Amino acid sequence: MSELEAERLARSYLLRVAEPPAPALAGFVGEFGPVVAAERVRRADCPPKVRDETAARRAHDYAERDLERAAADETRLVIPEDDEWPAWPLLSLAVAQGRGVSGMAPPLALWVRGPVKLGEAVDQAIAIVGARAATGYGEHNAAEVGYHLASRGIPVFSGAAFGIDGAAHRGALSADGTTVAVLGCGADVEYPAQHATLLRNIGKVGAVVSEYPPGTTPARHRFLVRNRLIAALTEGTVVVEAGRRSGARNTASTAGALGKVVMAMPGPVSSGMSAGCHALIREGEATLVTSVDEILETAGRFGAEGAEPSKPRRRTDRLGPEALRVHDALSTRSARPEERLAAESGIPVERVRSLLPELELDGFAERSDAGWRKRAAKT
Amino acid sequence: MSELEAERLARSYLLRVAEPPAPALAGFVGEFGPVVAAERVRRADCPPKVRDETAARRAHDYAERDLERAAADETRLVIPEDDEWPAWPLLSLAVAQGRGVSGMAPPLALWVRGPVKLGEAVDQAIAIVGARAATGYGEHNAAEVGYHLASRGIPVFSGAAFGIDGAAHRGALSADGTTVAVLGCGADVEYPAQHATLLRNIGKVGAVVSEYPPGTTPARHRFLVRNRLIAALTEGTVVVEAGRRSGARNTASTAGALGKVVMAMPGPVSSGMSAGCHALIREGEATLVTSVDEILETAGRFGAEGAEPSKPRRRTDRLGPEALRVHDALSTRSARPEERLAAESGIPVERVRSLLPELELDGFAERSDAGWRKRAAKT
Repeated sequence: MSELEAERLARSYLLRVAEPPAPALAGFVGEFGPVVAAERVRRADCPPKVRDETAARRAHDYAERDLERAAADETRLVIPEDDEWPAWPLLSLAVAQGRGVSGMAPPLALWVRGPVKLGEAVDQAIAIVGARAATGYGEHNAAEVGYHLASRGIPVFSGAAFGIDGAAHRGALSADGTTVAVLGCGADVEYPAQHATLLRNIGKVGAVVSEYPPGTTPARHRFLVRNRLIAALTEGTVVVEAGRRSGARNTASTAGALGKVVMAMPGPVSSGMSAGCHALIREGEATLVTSVDEILETAGRFGAEGAEPSKPRRRTDRLGPEALRVHDALSTRSARPEERLAAESGIPVERVRSLLPELELDGFAERSDAGWRKRAAKT
Repeated sequence: MSELEAERLARSYLLRVAEPPAPALAGFVGEFGPVVAAERVRRADCPPKVRDETAARRAHDYAERDLERAAADETRLVIPEDDEWPAWPLLSLAVAQGRGVSGMAPPLALWVRGPVKLGEAVDQAIAIVGARAATGYGEHNAAEVGYHLASRGIPVFSGAAFGIDGAAHRGALSADGTTVAVLGCGADVEYPAQHATLLRNIGKVGAVVSEYPPGTTPARHRFLVRNRLIAALTEGTVVVEAGRRSGARNTASTAGALGKVVMAMPGPVSSGMSAGCHALIREGEATLVTSVDEILETAGRFGAEGAEPSKPRRRTDRLGPEALRVHDALSTRSARPEERLAAESGIPVERVRSLLPELELDGFAERSDAGWRKRAAKT
């Protein structure tokens, strides 16, 4: 067994023995590495706090079975030792934990189903969250925002719930964009049942993500724990509709605690489903946004023609108009040949060929055998 | 002729000879008093800037005729020398002018029709402004806010225009509350013509106010000049609906420049008539409000039972309930004897006598020969 396989097996075991978030176990694994940590947990040879977190299930050693069961469902366990691990966005959890915010322990690993590499999907990603009991107004806006973000190449994260979540995923899917569902149950659990097809579709083109082992049933506390992942994995969170005590406000305040951009859409003052959004804006916890342009401007990103940020905040602002069009034609997910970039950008292929090395030098593009790929550039 | 009559006559003349705002003339009147200033303007014996402001009309000496014409319409000229003059709120104009904000010259006097004393109407007053081309949603909210403010004893100021203005006045009237229309034409000019009955009704129970002499026709520039009075005479301005380039945004930014509280109501993101409100909130120029409770909380007032401010923002929040009632019974404009304060506050006169020195120590009240006066304390 390779070292990486041993680590994956160890983390598969650890994900099952402690209910996330498990701050003591996370620290223990950070100190001794997953393989040693797993062995010592098995033997109950660990500090009292780690023992507390793992005592109830440390005999549940289903690591191999979980990996096999997941593989049968085309699900992989992505671990911090993998290239795909979204280390940078998850760092916000460790920082918040260090500042004393409770419940922010980073995940020990993530079960992922879908063709999108998690580390790439988080680039410039936006979370769209909101009430399950959304109104037609809210679902319409969630679908619109999901569609227009995705069609500009911005990955759309949500929680696959009824209402706003489902509308946001569907909007992104209908734009053939990237969408990621982060679940409060096993990645193989079709919950809510009426969203089974939606979850399958997301898994076909985007990713379904969970830190819970296969078969884990949904539970209220798991949705709250899951919310920290949605907030952490994205650049900003948009609350489309939320009642005064909605779980979406929990995601929003978590995003704020993680230093992420929190946004909310307004609605009619008479709508209880907009009351949570209005409260977030009124109390200065969220910035009011009414359109994808405003979302991108607030999150400090471009993404597209049509967006006219009042203040240039993106690295790509430095690019000339032709370079920008070629950059827009690049994909972070798949390498594209120069001919395709020329066709998509409407710029002659000779000119594309001379612009690409410049983009590469500036860190905006990278060359591969199959063509050119957009570099996941931080602003 | 009494001194006061001479001053009134002089200001009646001066209001007609210069188109407001007339900063040089206002300064000249401040320096020499209205009687001397009027004489010198008549003779063109004044500094060049004052001459520029008055040259075109200084021969238009209709002072007596204007006063008679107004009196026939039950309209009086309220001048700074009157007890009724709203000196404190208008001070914000002088302060802004001193800080170099243009177009903020205070009015030389105000034509007023209606039973409400202007100096009293401005106490805790709220301006409700918005688009003429309002939607049903906007008009409904303006009427609701007007009604509920007025029924809690908060005077409602607006501009008597179509749309939001008219709905706000009507809402206040239907609560039998105080409402004040500030016009961009003569107080006797029924504009818009379809609001003739509305203006008459406001004049019967509230006040119709203008700095323009009787018969002055409405003009676009006069509405903008008038906006500074709506902003200055009130504690805060609520923009109910506004397009991106609405005149209501002008009132809002004037209110902001005057240090007043600026508020805006949200609406559907798809509504162009809410776009101006959303922009004000998004850009941090206005606080989002969805209800009268939130308006009162934001404007920093109790005003009424039912309002539950989440954060104490007013200096007087530190006062105990009895001290607060005595404080509320004080007037900034005129000194009141202890007996009157006892009667108004419903607190025994002995207790009032012991509370007043405490209020004085904290800077909330000041003693004079005629009794006690409220100190104009800024929060």
